[in-house]
Amino acid sequence: MLLHLSTWAEVERFLERSRTIVVPIGSNEQHGPTGLLGTDWLCPEIIAHEAQKSADILVAPTFNIGMAQHHLGFPGTISLRPSTFIAAIGDWTRSLAVHGFEKILFLNGHGGNVASIEAAFSELYAEASFARRRAGFALRLRNWWDIKGVGALARQQFPTGHGSHATPSEIAVTQWAYPDAIKSANYAPQIAGSGPIREALDFRARHPDGRMGSDPGLATPEKGGALVALAAKGLIEEVEAFGRELPAG
Amino acid sequence: MLLHLSTWAEVERFLERSRTIVVPIGSNEQHGPTGLLGTDWLCPEIIAHEAQKSADILVAPTFNIGMAQHHLGFPGTISLRPSTFIAAIGDWTRSLAVHGFEKILFLNGHGGNVASIEAAFSELYAEASFARRRAGFALRLRNWWDIKGVGALARQQFPTGHGSHATPSEIAVTQWAYPDAIKSANYAPQIAGSGPIREALDFRARHPDGRMGSDPGLATPEKGGALVALAAKGLIEEVEAFGRELPAG
Amino acid sequence: MLLHLSTWAEVERFLERSRTIVVPIGSNEQHGPTGLLGTDWLCPEIIAHEAQKSADILVAPTFNIGMAQHHLGFPGTISLRPSTFIAAIGDWTRSLAVHGFEKILFLNGHGGNVASIEAAFSELYAEASFARRRAGFALRLRNWWDIKGVGALARQQFPTGHGSHATPSEIAVTQWAYPDAIKSANYAPQIAGSGPIREALDFRARHPDGRMGSDPGLATPEKGGALVALAAKGLIEEVEAFGRELPAG
Amino acid sequence: MLLHLSTWAEVERFLERSRTIVVPIGSNEQHGPTGLLGTDWLCPEIIAHEAQKSADILVAPTFNIGMAQHHLGFPGTISLRPSTFIAAIGDWTRSLAVHGFEKILFLNGHGGNVASIEAAFSELYAEASFARRRAGFALRLRNWWDIKGVGALARQQFPTGHGSHATPSEIAVTQWAYPDAIKSANYAPQIAGSGPIREALDFRARHPDGRMGSDPGLATPEKGGALVALAAKGLIEEVEAFGRELPAG
Amino acid sequence: MLLHLSTWAEVERFLERSRTIVVPIGSNEQHGPTGLLGTDWLCPEIIAHEAQKSADILVAPTFNIGMAQHHLGFPGTISLRPSTFIAAIGDWTRSLAVHGFEKILFLNGHGGNVASIEAAFSELYAEASFARRRAGFALRLRNWWDIKGVGALARQQFPTGHGSHATPSEIAVTQWAYPDAIKSANYAPQIAGSGPIREALDFRARHPDGRMGSDPGLATPEKGGALVALAAKGLIEEVEAFGRELPAG
Amino acid sequence: MLLHLSTWAEVERFLERSRTIVVPIGSNEQHGPTGLLGTDWLCPEIIAHEAQKSADILVAPTFNIGMAQHHLGFPGTISLRPSTFIAAIGDWTRSLAVHGFEKILFLNGHGGNVASIEAAFSELYAEASFARRRAGFALRLRNWWDIKGVGALARQQFPTGHGSHATPSEIAVTQWAYPDAIKSANYAPQIAGSGPIREALDFRARHPDGRMGSDPGLATPEKGGALVALAAKGLIEEVEAFGRELPAG
Repeated sequence: MLLHLSTWAEVERFLERSRTIVVPIGSNEQHGPTGLLGTDWLCPEIIAHEAQKSADILVAPTFNIGMAQHHLGFPGTISLRPSTFIAAIGDWTRSLAVHGFEKILFLNGHGGNVASIEAAFSELYAEASFARRRAGFALRLRNWWDIKGVGALARQQFPTGHGSHATPSEIAVTQWAYPDAIKSANYAPQIAGSGPIREALDFRARHPDGRMGSDPGLATPEKGGALVALAAKGLIEEVEAFGRELPAG
Repeated sequence: MLLHLSTWAEVERFLERSRTIVVPIGSNEQHGPTGLLGTDWLCPEIIAHEAQKSADILVAPTFNIGMAQHHLGFPGTISLRPSTFIAAIGDWTRSLAVHGFEKILFLNGHGGNVASIEAAFSELYAEASFARRRAGFALRLRNWWDIKGVGALARQQFPTGHGSHATPSEIAVTQWAYPDAIKSANYAPQIAGSGPIREALDFRARHPDGRMGSDPGLATPEKGGALVALAAKGLIEEVEAFGRELPAG
Repeated sequence: MLLHLSTWAEVERFLERSRTIVVPIGSNEQHGPTGLLGTDWLCPEIIAHEAQKSADILVAPTFNIGMAQHHLGFPGTISLRPSTFIAAIGDWTRSLAVHGFEKILFLNGHGGNVASIEAAFSELYAEASFARRRAGFALRLRNWWDIKGVGALARQQFPTGHGSHATPSEIAVTQWAYPDAIKSANYAPQIAGSGPIREALDFRARHPDGRMGSDPGLATPEKGGALVALAAKGLIEEVEAFGRELPAG
Repeated sequence: MLLHLSTWAEVERFLERSRTIVVPIGSNEQHGPTGLLGTDWLCPEIIAHEAQKSADILVAPTFNIGMAQHHLGFPGTISLRPSTFIAAIGDWTRSLAVHGFEKILFLNGHGGNVASIEAAFSELYAEASFARRRAGFALRLRNWWDIKGVGALARQQFPTGHGSHATPSEIAVTQWAYPDAIKSANYAPQIAGSGPIREALDFRARHPDGRMGSDPGLATPEKGGALVALAAKGLIEEVEAFGRELPAG
Repeated sequence: MLLHLSTWAEVERFLERSRTIVVPIGSNEQHGPTGLLGTDWLCPEIIAHEAQKSADILVAPTFNIGMAQHHLGFPGTISLRPSTFIAAIGDWTRSLAVHGFEKILFLNGHGGNVASIEAAFSELYAEASFARRRAGFALRLRNWWDIKGVGALARQQFPTGHGSHATPSEIAVTQWAYPDAIKSANYAPQIAGSGPIREALDFRARHPDGRMGSDPGLATPEKGGALVALAAKGLIEEVEAFGRELPAG
Repeated sequence: MLLHLSTWAEVERFLERSRTIVVPIGSNEQHGPTGLLGTDWLCPEIIAHEAQKSADILVAPTFNIGMAQHHLGFPGTISLRPSTFIAAIGDWTRSLAVHGFEKILFLNGHGGNVASIEAAFSELYAEASFARRRAGFALRLRNWWDIKGVGALARQQFPTGHGSHATPSEIAVTQWAYPDAIKSANYAPQIAGSGPIREALDFRARHPDGRMGSDPGLATPEKGGALVALAAKGLIEEVEAFGRELPAG
């Protein structure tokens, strides 16, 4: 069930049977010479939308702009500062909590988001602590590549050249979902180099075409489809387990 | 051209021929018994995506959560506080300005966003003033229903029962784009009442099913299609005129 | 009754008979070659002070600095950033709410304030929503020129050359109240041009003497006096009606 | 010269002969059974307005709401939180600096403002330091009762019962300026007690009628007039000396 | 009892016998040619640690970075902006309040901190007022040189050349505690000059070696020891009196 | 070289030979029945202070309060909200950058700090990007247990019962440095359980004595000494390598 294609009355009825919601969250940032700028928010959106086709889970609109400051040297990247990002995650969460959602799972598509999302969770929990009241909700961050079995499949699909940015696995996922937007380029070198992540100009100097350690040429729509199927299945299981979890104490 | 389905290199090339970008912006909030929660961000997205099919304009990802606090009494509504909203619009804009975009047109789908978007523009301009430097960009807000000719068409399509929230025109637009998500309900009364907009609980007490002055039952996909076609055409003209505008002085 | 010339005990007694207060709010900014820098906060102050002479309404001190960033290219303009403005309106309102005021009417004298004031209202209402409690107050914004009958009188007094900034109507109001501070100048052109409002340097380039579409030379103290009398009468009626309004639900 | 009764062109000419401006700043808060709620912003306004009658100094609009949280237990008090207050002082100062003002003297009427005003100055100076540039302005805080000779006169006028809040000297100043707003009450005890300043409810419990150590019954308009005359004269001298000060280094 | 060398269970037991805690707070900033950069946080730490050896008082970790923007022209100075400082004092205080501490005494070592600390207290009290609840704690600021008898001893030890920054008394305290870190230099002039405190570059231009009005060459470890002994004794008395104080009302 | 026991002139000379500085950073929070509340800031302080005895590295004062909201259920814990933490790290860093430090290594002692520290780095880098200037510094986070070889030694010392909070390795480090503050208790169970980290009350319900997966009874001062020696040596190597690193591009 996609929240944005539902009515408020349908959500009200959903809340009678579940207090759990999935929020796809990512980033809009350069993904090398052939990766789509939307890759990091499209991947969790694709997986979550696939999952809700075969299970009664509710998927929120996609939080599509994250923390991508180190990619700002490449046109098309849009980034929130961590402070803005934390404030926005807070308002999404407070809104959902007003309606009675108690378990909010952020399905994340961007490694650079992790620190800010976790900081946002702590900010929300601290709000509850300082006000001396029980938080009333549990927040969970799950990177789609950390869903059970997904990392293993990606390693099997791409034994070399997977890398850490503009990876063939994420590009394969978008190829499966957007076959009309598959791009090609000559990669030089075939597998990109690695290095530290710092400020945006420094990043572009170290990683001139935007890739980090990856060979996106290995991606195919078929491999993407297999990743999506496995991730969607794992997501459903995780959402259901999360929903069954009891509070402590 | 959809930014999120493009590569950074494609955007770099676009910047050689234009410095203008369109950002669809809306809200995710209740739209009465039959309107989709996503209505207000889907409408500008639908129109902008349609427009870029027949003209060389660039469309950013959709800013899908806006200022909807007065709808928080209805499940599924997600709202940013104005202060968060202003900060986020600022970061989107600063990111785009880093790449060289100079004309940013926010195509808006939610009346409740107007105050915060305009405040955000002033905040950005003030940043430039206090730093004693020229801003280097022009920001424009355009509600999709204010595009040339669109309001007149809507008034002609819906001479009565248009109202101001969950209007048949916006619902028609989503029906045209998402025919599988058309909902139905008995409206009581057929045309909803009106009243002031205040805090969320007050709003739900005054407007029990969420509508304000509207009869969404008048919407049809065909009417929506006509609105989209006209709005897309007008948007193209406006983007081109905006791009040609010269700075003052 | 002017709050700043009253004692706390007098306000305590006022609260036994009314929960409504009027806050004049404006801006300190250039008003063309002959308009006073204080015009936009003087006008609502003049009207509200006049109104309280003939009715039992309470008038707070004047909030005299607003959102005037686009006028910063002209000496004497003082502006709050929207974020600061919103925070300050919040603290004024929270202070008044602590004492039991439930209806707060901001009588506004500057169009550029509207977005930030409305955003501030939403911020305050959202505070209540996120804390899951009823707001307990109603906030209203009323531009003095939108008080019943005032716009019509101004159009009758100034059928041409009214414009939108440094208008003859607002200048007439200050002439009536501050006859010793009436200024004169040669206007070239007699009726100023129009154009978009952007960043401060851009504004001064487009509007070299600060006016927008107006001929302030049409103002007279007598016309100002007629506007004040009508606005004061309308304000009293509006305050009384606002005070009688019942909460929803 | 009063800025709010001047045009931007007049201020532009003033800047050719001086870079100094005076900002009256105070608070709107309870002042005991007979003191006006506006006392703390009226006093510096009265003195500064008096001073500009006999010298070529420029006086900004009055910053009328300050840090008065400890008085919020008494109706009519309006307070900014220190964080808001600091932000607002920052925006006033940045606006004035844009126009070329380099010496800004805040003439203060409320002891409770001192900490926040000094913190605001440091915030502004730090802004310059972190940006590795010279600030370009000097900020000064002067309490009106600390102007040369004023404290001595007040001690001579009120050898006992002066106290620290709702003092006869500040009340005398407002009596001189607003003779129609002189109030009377029976004071019990005649001279109020003292105690620490903490949170608002605590304050009202310790100081039930709002006074601290004072006997406001000693105030007369004549004494107020003498204080104003002396303070206005001292202010002129201080403004002129401040304007002549050269930057270090 | 030093909190950081205790376990949570020991603090839980302490709370059964006292609700008072001491927080040493200072600044890390230049202290002239021979003063340690840590002087201003070491002094209150030294005194508080000494005090807890002979009385059952609890000492929190030292808040070691304060408001030192005007010293940023000298290497090694680290400063918080007032806004950050206020936020951090707030979080320390809210944390301690969660555990049940009701009397929090900040033992301060830096004059430049006073404004921000007092503003922080007001911010915390205002938080309570705006939420219409009793604060439940009392906050106190005590500069170590204002502890009973300490100022008199310093004036007796250093009848001339005490000055206001890099004073012989504070340097003597650190000499007593850190005899291995005693530095020497030729002072020119022997007693430093005075002047206003503004922005950092201005400060260094006025005070080229960092001292203000002081001759640190007068400091000896013995004098420092006498100051510490007296201050520690006075602190114990003050903590005990503060703990016995009853709330008002 | 300890910055706080140095003069500004000594730091100025250090900057002529190195642009690198180490900032110990941790948290003050419960560490089970026997761990010191200061454990997480004492460990990096102990290691950094040890390292500077045998190499020419500069160590800043310790940043002793971090992100510990989930431990607020246990008395003595003091936590910054992530937003405050990020602001404070920003001000420390901006201060050090003003002096010319270009490589800042935060030696961290608390896993819960990692997200906020990384977010702070991104915030600082974004500041540079949005201002379209090169950052001019490199920021690095190193957990002391991730220094080369340290983790391996800890696993060898504590093959079972190491856990993730109140670990025997961190307690051993404080035992070595503070032998007079070694505590004892009966652990029940000997090795604590594990579980998710959420809000503070939830945490205490899941982890009743504060430990997570650890048996602190395994700690000895000797094992702590070995860890410190190895970590100090590794830190020196890392600081030197960091200092030699050239910027990209």
